[in-house]
Amino acid sequence: MSTSATSRHVFLSGPMGAGKSTVGPRLAALLGRSFVDLDAAIATETGLHVAEIFRSKGEATFRRLEADVARRLIGHDVPSVFALGGGTVEDADTRARLLDRGVLITLSAPLDTLLDRAARDPSSPVSRPLLGAHPGDPQAREALARILERRAPAYAEAHRVIDTASATPDEIARTIASSLDHDARSVVVRLGARSHRVVIADGAASSLANELEVLDASSVVVVTDANVRELAERWAAPIQRSVTWVELPAGEAAKTIHSIERIWDVALAARIDRGAVVVAIGGGVVGDMAGFAAATLLRGLRVVQVPTTLLAMVDSSVGGKTGIDRAQGKNLVGAFHQPSLVLCDVSALETLPVRELRAGWAEVVKTAWIEGEGDVAALEAAVETLRANAPEGRGAIEAAIRRAVRTKARIVAMDENERGPRRWLNLGHTYGHAIEAASGYALVHGEAIAVGLVAAMRLSERSGRASAADVARMRSLLGSFGLDVRWPAGLDRAALASFLSVDKKSEQGQLRFVTAGSPGQVGTLAIEGDRVLAFVDELSSA
Amino acid sequence: MSTSATSRHVFLSGPMGAGKSTVGPRLAALLGRSFVDLDAAIATETGLHVAEIFRSKGEATFRRLEADVARRLIGHDVPSVFALGGGTVEDADTRARLLDRGVLITLSAPLDTLLDRAARDPSSPVSRPLLGAHPGDPQAREALARILERRAPAYAEAHRVIDTASATPDEIARTIASSLDHDARSVVVRLGARSHRVVIADGAASSLANELEVLDASSVVVVTDANVRELAERWAAPIQRSVTWVELPAGEAAKTIHSIERIWDVALAARIDRGAVVVAIGGGVVGDMAGFAAATLLRGLRVVQVPTTLLAMVDSSVGGKTGIDRAQGKNLVGAFHQPSLVLCDVSALETLPVRELRAGWAEVVKTAWIEGEGDVAALEAAVETLRANAPEGRGAIEAAIRRAVRTKARIVAMDENERGPRRWLNLGHTYGHAIEAASGYALVHGEAIAVGLVAAMRLSERSGRASAADVARMRSLLGSFGLDVRWPAGLDRAALASFLSVDKKSEQGQLRFVTAGSPGQVGTLAIEGDRVLAFVDELSSA
Repeated sequence: MSTSATSRHVFLSGPMGAGKSTVGPRLAALLGRSFVDLDAAIATETGLHVAEIFRSKGEATFRRLEADVARRLIGHDVPSVFALGGGTVEDADTRARLLDRGVLITLSAPLDTLLDRAARDPSSPVSRPLLGAHPGDPQAREALARILERRAPAYAEAHRVIDTASATPDEIARTIASSLDHDARSVVVRLGARSHRVVIADGAASSLANELEVLDASSVVVVTDANVRELAERWAAPIQRSVTWVELPAGEAAKTIHSIERIWDVALAARIDRGAVVVAIGGGVVGDMAGFAAATLLRGLRVVQVPTTLLAMVDSSVGGKTGIDRAQGKNLVGAFHQPSLVLCDVSALETLPVRELRAGWAEVVKTAWIEGEGDVAALEAAVETLRANAPEGRGAIEAAIRRAVRTKARIVAMDENERGPRRWLNLGHTYGHAIEAASGYALVHGEAIAVGLVAAMRLSERSGRASAADVARMRSLLGSFGLDVRWPAGLDRAALASFLSVDKKSEQGQLRFVTAGSPGQVGTLAIEGDRVLAFVDELSSA
Repeated sequence: MSTSATSRHVFLSGPMGAGKSTVGPRLAALLGRSFVDLDAAIATETGLHVAEIFRSKGEATFRRLEADVARRLIGHDVPSVFALGGGTVEDADTRARLLDRGVLITLSAPLDTLLDRAARDPSSPVSRPLLGAHPGDPQAREALARILERRAPAYAEAHRVIDTASATPDEIARTIASSLDHDARSVVVRLGARSHRVVIADGAASSLANELEVLDASSVVVVTDANVRELAERWAAPIQRSVTWVELPAGEAAKTIHSIERIWDVALAARIDRGAVVVAIGGGVVGDMAGFAAATLLRGLRVVQVPTTLLAMVDSSVGGKTGIDRAQGKNLVGAFHQPSLVLCDVSALETLPVRELRAGWAEVVKTAWIEGEGDVAALEAAVETLRANAPEGRGAIEAAIRRAVRTKARIVAMDENERGPRRWLNLGHTYGHAIEAASGYALVHGEAIAVGLVAAMRLSERSGRASAADVARMRSLLGSFGLDVRWPAGLDRAALASFLSVDKKSEQGQLRFVTAGSPGQVGTLAIEGDRVLAFVDELSSA
């Protein structure tokens, strides 16, 4: 699937009176595309005016028809600008498809503006039957308020939500056009009111200052570490708002409550208010800490994640997990706190040490394995290009990251708080975390996960859930990225045992171990911690 | 409004096949009440079978009719047991009314159980038209899954959700009957999936052990302080699960990150998993800290609040605000983390020091003022009884607490994260917080709030939003509770200035000051911090 701006449809969503049919043609003209009005297309197809269908066949019939026509239009090859019906996105399947195949923009406006506009537009085809009254009536106001309340989570799941009350249709069209390239390179994490974009693009960070304007940040707290301070300063330079800096020591050892207290105190000393935005520029450790500080400052500030490592781009920056380590283990304290925006600027990978890059690919392999055959095969085909990390391979890297983010976003949307399917993402992590800790963090996270993935596959094989060929394929793919998947020599068994059982995925004394067979075949297995530990002997003797 | 169990209706809600019409008659027999089936009542009233109305007039018409009949039935004087329609609670107004006038119980069961039962029941009147297929068809499964997903937030807003898959109708009826007294004395905080009960009853804490069974806690962490340790041990004694204790020093000075770290470490050392439940037994400080620790342990554990002071019952335990103090000010770090249950056992007030009790009434006065004339008049009428705190006045105290909790719950449900109307609850708190801090915490919170309330009214009067009579009435009501509302002598002006402007309600350099006129007339005013400070001279000279 191509992701360049010129190959993707633009879908304008939003309630009646939000401006879909006035902005749409202007945007189409600006982009040199054709404009399609979904209601008009339905009328052409059925020979009936939308209001008639509504009246004679009922809302349910109309919605089915609408979903059907929308699905066929989305399939069109020539990228166009579409004005959807006000309720089109209420259907979850349709919404998912729109987000996947194009750039979905929600136009909105205050209730009274919407009613005003509807009253001045006598045609307003779908709205009338829904409101059951003239837009000027008090009943209509109440009815529209209820509709907006019901649709709010659906409208929030968009690439962008634009208030059309205070700008002209031409200005709005220009706003949409100017951000279209980055929006087209984005994955939307669909979480109702907490929905947000993950932009994956060479140069994504160049939009940081503008996006902070869009978020109307009252002030900005940039959290970074010594490793990326220079890059962070370059990216933050264009920010128009007051900026406070917190530079943390680099590395996992800094991931403590003391670092969080530093962020709290610097931010509070700067007298931030609840409109402030925290910006995390760095790897996973910076993102986890900045996210946790944001989750807890004034009971919750917005955070923008700007990951600079491959691992952070594909893993820690997406999904809202934030936290710190305690003596008892990693990430035992934290919060689920979704970012308002994630900017993955792949140009940052240019200067990433080879070891860090390699470690990041382990998580990409894991995620592809969860997704299925297509993504694993795509990785296998591209592995040389990806490893080379050359400028001409940037497109392939971007595509691989986007696939991983898409999978992760899909799973997180199913299960934000990790009570169900999100556990799949822990594939390889039961052994991985324990190895990482027992090595005294001599192995970086991704290196430990590579070993953990093969170990998990072998335990899956032992449990009848994977074939020898599956295990060999995983081993080979990780190996082709230069990852060493042999069980590390000299790990302290007592340390391993302790880290295996304090693992927070344990429940009622049992581990919920994530198993995998062939790509796409991922599940969980309730298993005694003792059995997982006993299997270590087998793993370390091979 | 009476709140004894015998005077309230019981409403059984839930999807088709959940057991409303099998459990209902059994429960009615157990309670010696009559049983009313809403669908049958509609059929009687209209002379049409529900399925016919659905088919011939459409779902919208049926829902209007249903809401109408439900509203009239709720008004009946004789307490009865009602089986609602599966979709009755989807209407937010109807749902609010049901929760207010009776005990609303959601019966649920796994999807396949529901379909099984529906397939075996050929009458199943409303379900057919909704599913559009025989319950045995795969289409019906998909349709019902969609309906359940849509209704999930509405079904969660109930006094109790009971899974009927693994118990007999008689057992379920007995379960409902046995908890009916406490449920009838509860206020439901309506927050979709985060909905929960606040039980206000003499002896509410006696259900703690049982409720932890219902929550299926894998283990329990009890957080308390030295002041209430003895009471906490008595209440916790019947708990069947493994219990870990954390006793914190009493008082605001302990509300630091160090106390939170102690809770983290004790809990992690006990190897809790994500099924653990934190139980806070104590005043506001204990509740805030236990709540914050729960919000952050393993990225979020459930918490049950068992407040032991009047202030905590009416204020801090409801609404999900948790947190700690920093050098820069109070509550500057924390999280919104809704409890799973709040048990306000008014018997704990027996031994509460007079000063603490008096301070608590300040928050009750504030909340009544936000609610309106009825609640303020009720307080004025009962003030002598409330102040006396005698056993025979317990009913009046319970009623006053319930009114305050109801108001707070209503406002929190409108605005969980304090971006809008929830700010009203800060009435009196801009000055109150600053006075409390500038006094070096010589004044307890409620005492400072009493002064702050009169100060806020006087600034409201100056801004043309309150009359001299309003101010006098507030002053008199607070005074009748024995609260001193004079501006405290000797407050350091520089300290006041600093605490006024770091107040986290400030935005873009301005304070959003909460004003009040006559009861029910509450609003906000954007005002320069300097003006709020300058007014201090006037306040302190009067």
